[in-house]
Amino acid sequence: MNKIYYPNRQDWPEIVKRPTQTVADIEQTVEAIFEAVQKGGDLAIKKYTDQFDRVQLDSILVTDEEIQTAADSVSSELKKAISLAKSNIEKFHAAQKTAKVEMETMPGVLCWQEKRPIQKVGLYIPGGTAPLFSTILMLAIPAKLAGCEEIILCTPPDKKGNVNPTILFAAQLCGVTKIFKVGGIQAIAGMTFGTETIPNVYKIFGPGNQFVTVAKQLATKYGVAIDMPAGPSELLVVADDSANPAFVASDLLSQAEHGVDSQVILVSTSEKLVDVVEKEIEAQIKVLPRVAIAEKSIQNSKLILMKDDESAMDLINEYGPEHFIVCVENKEFYLQNIQNAGSVFIGNYTPESAGDYASGTNHTLPTNGYAKQYSGVNLDSFMKSMTFQKISKEGMKTIGSSIELMAEAEGLQAHKNAVTLRLKYLK
Amino acid sequence: MNKIYYPNRQDWPEIVKRPTQTVADIEQTVEAIFEAVQKGGDLAIKKYTDQFDRVQLDSILVTDEEIQTAADSVSSELKKAISLAKSNIEKFHAAQKTAKVEMETMPGVLCWQEKRPIQKVGLYIPGGTAPLFSTILMLAIPAKLAGCEEIILCTPPDKKGNVNPTILFAAQLCGVTKIFKVGGIQAIAGMTFGTETIPNVYKIFGPGNQFVTVAKQLATKYGVAIDMPAGPSELLVVADDSANPAFVASDLLSQAEHGVDSQVILVSTSEKLVDVVEKEIEAQIKVLPRVAIAEKSIQNSKLILMKDDESAMDLINEYGPEHFIVCVENKEFYLQNIQNAGSVFIGNYTPESAGDYASGTNHTLPTNGYAKQYSGVNLDSFMKSMTFQKISKEGMKTIGSSIELMAEAEGLQAHKNAVTLRLKYLK
Repeated sequence: MNKIYYPNRQDWPEIVKRPTQTVADIEQTVEAIFEAVQKGGDLAIKKYTDQFDRVQLDSILVTDEEIQTAADSVSSELKKAISLAKSNIEKFHAAQKTAKVEMETMPGVLCWQEKRPIQKVGLYIPGGTAPLFSTILMLAIPAKLAGCEEIILCTPPDKKGNVNPTILFAAQLCGVTKIFKVGGIQAIAGMTFGTETIPNVYKIFGPGNQFVTVAKQLATKYGVAIDMPAGPSELLVVADDSANPAFVASDLLSQAEHGVDSQVILVSTSEKLVDVVEKEIEAQIKVLPRVAIAEKSIQNSKLILMKDDESAMDLINEYGPEHFIVCVENKEFYLQNIQNAGSVFIGNYTPESAGDYASGTNHTLPTNGYAKQYSGVNLDSFMKSMTFQKISKEGMKTIGSSIELMAEAEGLQAHKNAVTLRLKYLK
Repeated sequence: MNKIYYPNRQDWPEIVKRPTQTVADIEQTVEAIFEAVQKGGDLAIKKYTDQFDRVQLDSILVTDEEIQTAADSVSSELKKAISLAKSNIEKFHAAQKTAKVEMETMPGVLCWQEKRPIQKVGLYIPGGTAPLFSTILMLAIPAKLAGCEEIILCTPPDKKGNVNPTILFAAQLCGVTKIFKVGGIQAIAGMTFGTETIPNVYKIFGPGNQFVTVAKQLATKYGVAIDMPAGPSELLVVADDSANPAFVASDLLSQAEHGVDSQVILVSTSEKLVDVVEKEIEAQIKVLPRVAIAEKSIQNSKLILMKDDESAMDLINEYGPEHFIVCVENKEFYLQNIQNAGSVFIGNYTPESAGDYASGTNHTLPTNGYAKQYSGVNLDSFMKSMTFQKISKEGMKTIGSSIELMAEAEGLQAHKNAVTLRLKYLK
């Protein structure tokens, strides 16, 4: 692993750099598929499903029967675990509801802010080796709580034309209104333009590979919003001698197994801790089924020794980690001063896995340093805030002349007129 | 004006279409300037300022002395009006502060959500004929309230190298930390990459012409967030015979004077009202200083007669207006059922101008139908929400096995391990 001892500040920009991805070369492919789906609708979708997923489908809409069969095949233990996670996620996201903000800014000038749901949202869940049903919980539960009317889900079918049963079970449990067997670029295009079968949506959520990421970016050009820009997953742990090195190593590895481009970083003021964690990683990694992936992403990763908590904190804020585990004696210092992080995990018994699945917080979080300006997915991600105002005759008399003066100073005479007319009428 | 009587639903998509803009042909220019600023820094900025704004500047940073001189030149009446607006905007945005959301989702599983400021934000204010100092109030006031550390502002200089004094006064009053005489694409590029003089920022706010709009889009490719996608300003009024037709006409015209691509729409169930408003527009437009602009945008505009409130409401939600004025007897119906709008103005004495300047609500709002999925600028636009969690030993014992089951079902063994290790330790 890369060990970095007491780096100079001028070297920090290099240290906080993520393993880079190039996307330019796939933009053309994505644009071509978007154009084809916009023109061809379901037929184009089916063509690409045949081409990429190697299956010919009569219908891309998952039937109630398929959902029922799938639900029956999920073990009752797993169902119970999913229910517990659902309950926690529901509680925490329901608590994020905000009341109407209402105030009279001046006598007769009443202003308020209300949040209303985004009417139609689309969730994307990747297929492949790991069926990420947990992401359905993280997206569909807040969408349902927000009051979104249409919550559709696209996920690629396997070569037999089936979707993983746990995905169907979770989708149905969390209030997804329609499930489509469509993956990749064609799924994002379908939700962007709508087809005969797939409704268009106003906002698209969910993870995906590079193709899906570029497709989501392109969707924004067509007026669809997306949850956030995507990048490889990452974890930064700050730990000192109060941390359990085996636990720290297990957390770093749980992030490392996500993909070969995942990044894990350990920051510490204790050289001893760094050395022991390194040995623990070497021991634990060998027995992992996804050892090949974990080994590659460990190559991108860093063990960084810092002089003191202050410089460690500065470096961490410069990095802006998606996941941030705090395993130090002086927790309060890090909790008070962390400015840029997606989600923070505190103490020896709060592994990242807890937030990934079941504690209640969301696991769709800003990567790639985007924690500097983006929130993780939360209840508000499925709503938009609108403002309202109502001015009485008295209010207009009080505020009117200020509006006239400002409008005139900006050279906008018609803006002034709208007030002048009313003031005249009130005389 | 275009009058549309009782349109069929299949024609709605055509009716809600905005006057389109093409941006493809300026993308290359924008990319070239970005590249030059990224490489050349201040020198490149000055070169483009010379080229586009026709002035050679020694320094692009506005000095304290310039600000003081500018402030002295603003009339005390205008200063008073700006102070009144500032006070209202401050009150309404301060009321949007949300408390920490904290809950124990299960015994020993503590989760909370906190919002923290985006550390560095950049505001863009266009130059040209109308000095939009009101936009500074709308952006700098919530930025300051949110706690942003660095709030910089870029605005183009005139041919003498000066910035409109009211802009400097407002910026200084509202807590802008640094003001730069830089406009257009080069300003957005400067705030994206940073130069010797201009700090890079994490999020860029503010209006601009097509070049600025495309530049902001490009900035997002370099990891900078923007307030929202932009489009021409627009207003939709729903009115019946309880509305004052002269007031309605004045509101429509106040929107129409913004630019030739602005769009104004009147929706009504009363044919009589539509006819009278049309005549009022014809009378009022003639005396406007910006009559040429207003006349062109009135050509894009529509008077639409609808059969009943229900179909009117559906059409309005399909359109998703930036500004929505409700001047009808049955206000409650529209207030309850409006799903997609930036800001709503209620009754005969609430002109759009009030919200544009002084009532307290924000005037940076989603255009182009983006009200379907985007909020207008508000306090949260300058913050990001982070989640925290802390699990006790007891909590881990309760939640641990569910996490193990779910991680295993997703094929993520290292995620499971991180829990298994801890559970073993607790036995």
